[in-house]
Amino acid sequence: MVVLGIDPGSRVTGYAVLTRKGARFQLLEGGIIKTNTKSEMQYRLMEIHTGLTEIIKQFNPTSAGIESVFHHHSSESTIRLGQARGVALLALAQNNIPSAPYNPMTVKKSVGGHGRASKNDMIRIVSRLLGLSKDLRSDAADAAAIAITHLMHSEFQRRLK
Amino acid sequence: MVVLGIDPGSRVTGYAVLTRKGARFQLLEGGIIKTNTKSEMQYRLMEIHTGLTEIIKQFNPTSAGIESVFHHHSSESTIRLGQARGVALLALAQNNIPSAPYNPMTVKKSVGGHGRASKNDMIRIVSRLLGLSKDLRSDAADAAAIAITHLMHSEFQRRLK
Repeated sequence: MVVLGIDPGSRVTGYAVLTRKGARFQLLEGGIIKTNTKSEMQYRLMEIHTGLTEIIKQFNPTSAGIESVFHHHSSESTIRLGQARGVALLALAQNNIPSAPYNPMTVKKSVGGHGRASKNDMIRIVSRLLGLSKDLRSDAADAAAIAITHLMHSEFQRRLK
Repeated sequence: MVVLGIDPGSRVTGYAVLTRKGARFQLLEGGIIKTNTKSEMQYRLMEIHTGLTEIIKQFNPTSAGIESVFHHHSSESTIRLGQARGVALLALAQNNIPSAPYNPMTVKKSVGGHGRASKNDMIRIVSRLLGLSKDLRSDAADAAAIAITHLMHSEFQRRLK
């Protein structure tokens, strides 16, 4: 099973493609889509949509986990986040990939074991779980944490069936 | 000049295609995209994107006006609105159609002459401006009001050049 984790953002969208080999998680691809802040927002949204579509075509994930954050400092930033999340969900729908939303607390508890892990703790934990010798960059690590959470939840639900 | 007005929403997205004949506005097409509330959100976003893309291909507008609302009752509804707005902006970008945002107060002042017009006032004013014998439906009227505002602003800016 190959899964995609997405941490959407209008400035930086993180993504991670993961699979599981026995008890270990394996990172197939992880990175960020950094949009051109000099472009109009509609063209930045197109960069996110095109970038994610390319990743999806290349790795053909069976499902995806996507971050759901509902509390932001301002409604302007919430709208911007929603717009980025919208084009990410569209890329999934257009390729018929089901997705599940995970909020940051669920991700922290699933990956870190509790909800008090700091951002740096999470980067270290995720990088160790993936057997990487170098820590992932922050946004890619967030996406990888979402993908790990999604893999854990998907496998748990499969076992229940 | 043919312009497109969009009033995005995850449940109902209104659109209106307008042109100007002398001093009069003419409605070429106006309607709503009502998404299937039983579908997953990613597929509802795809309905909005597909619907707007069809309208764009059919009428080939030179530019678009899109509603920008930043204040909503909850952050969940703000995110949902942002998602719908995101796929609308993407459809414009993919067809290389520039867009401008208009907030409801600007639309009311531009079309109604002041900011105190009620929703029903606006529907009547818009329908009269377009020379329609029957009032437009609410969401299509909102989109038409945005398109009229956009036409007025675009022509004003052209005259300044």
